[in-house]
Amino acid sequence: MLTLYHSPNSRSSRIIRLIDELDVWNEIDVQIVGVARNDGSGGRDPKNPHPEGKVPLLVHDGVEIWESNAIILYLTDLFPKAGMGPVVGDPQRGRYLSWLAWYGNVVEPVIAIGVANLSHPVLDVTFRGMPEMIARLSAALESSLFLMGERFTAADLLLVSTFTWSPDAAPDNQAIKEWIARCEARPSAKRMAAFDSNHLEQSNDT
Amino acid sequence: MLTLYHSPNSRSSRIIRLIDELDVWNEIDVQIVGVARNDGSGGRDPKNPHPEGKVPLLVHDGVEIWESNAIILYLTDLFPKAGMGPVVGDPQRGRYLSWLAWYGNVVEPVIAIGVANLSHPVLDVTFRGMPEMIARLSAALESSLFLMGERFTAADLLLVSTFTWSPDAAPDNQAIKEWIARCEARPSAKRMAAFDSNHLEQSNDT
Ligand SMILES: N[C@@H](CCC(=O)N[C@@H](CS)C(=O)NCC(=O)O)C(=O)O
Ligand SMILES: N[C@@H](CCC(=O)N[C@@H](CS)C(=O)NCC(=O)O)C(=O)O
Repeated sequence: MLTLYHSPNSRSSRIIRLIDELDVWNEIDVQIVGVARNDGSGGRDPKNPHPEGKVPLLVHDGVEIWESNAIILYLTDLFPKAGMGPVVGDPQRGRYLSWLAWYGNVVEPVIAIGVANLSHPVLDVTFRGMPEMIARLSAALESSLFLMGERFTAADLLLVSTFTWSPDAAPDNQAIKEWIARCEARPSAKRMAAFDSNHLEQSNDT
Repeated sequence: MLTLYHSPNSRSSRIIRLIDELDVWNEIDVQIVGVARNDGSGGRDPKNPHPEGKVPLLVHDGVEIWESNAIILYLTDLFPKAGMGPVVGDPQRGRYLSWLAWYGNVVEPVIAIGVANLSHPVLDVTFRGMPEMIARLSAALESSLFLMGERFTAADLLLVSTFTWSPDAAPDNQAIKEWIARCEARPSAKRMAAFDSNHLEQSNDT
């Protein structure tokens, strides 16, 4: 049995979008929980088994799977039919693993450090910064429609979320802007938003 | 063909240790390159194809695989015989993916922010801090010898590197200290160190 602990309009919305792309709504029980929000609202929800009260958390037959990029990889391997990510043995597998890891290892820290408006030589060396991050993405997108080539995969789904949480989060870069538009034109983007707005109230009465 | 771009005494040393644990020295061509070091020595090496001049980088039949945790997962899947990580379909697979992702998403930022001696509410919410990181690890290690159970896996190899780069990096926590000692008692720890000291000079004349 698969259970996703999800809070609307949060990092776990990406997993909702993936469920839609994989077309596995019937395979995963989605439990709506509350979380502490950056604006001070909400709070840790006793119904959420995540050891730090975060979302997303996926539980498969009792085994807890945490971290968005790990959950995404787990699900694209479990449900390979939709072609949302190259499986083990595919020549492009390593590139797929690298994009997912790079999102967590580099993109999230660079964004958080940027939002906090901090700067320090140790952080610059370790994570580089926004210009280097944009350069990596745009180099990949100048030669193909999506990060893994001509087809949308879960690497795009995860990475594009960097730029869609706020209307002005997108960088002033043509290749990236066009890629964002291509990703967001997919029905799963609208269905994720609809799912979240339908479940917002439920998550607030925790 | 598999090529690892490696610089001695760096994050890529963990891949050297993994090659030893997997016993695949004959399968991977290790290319020694220089990198910019924190003390200001070294510098970007034109022989290193990594787009940011970093290590590790693995190249498999022309496909570049970057990020330590992605490389580790790729290699334990490619060479499953040594049992260094549960493969797709194993009930513990999700937990393995989570530890590898959590290292990059949480442990590296927490350490870097700590070394930089910075603090900010956005960073605290996003990554939490050292006490929460230690609590997660020690909770896992109080009930079993290693992070995945009774056997050493690449999750231990990666996570333990957090605490072995400097003699006083280890936290004052009994379960973690004993786990570090168990991991470091393995022959691969010494063989990694020997490999690096044998190749140090080569990386300096770049
Ligand atoms: N590294 C984690 C981050 C998860 C995370 O921070 N989720 C936020 C929601 S956007 C959360 O649960 N915040 C509540 C809290 O920090 O207590 C991942 O990628 O899944
Ligand atoms: N997130 C990367 C980090 C790699 C990294 O920063 N490696 C260091 C060596 S310890 C490096 O190559 N530094 C040289 C530089 O930053 O130019 C990973 O986990 O592989």
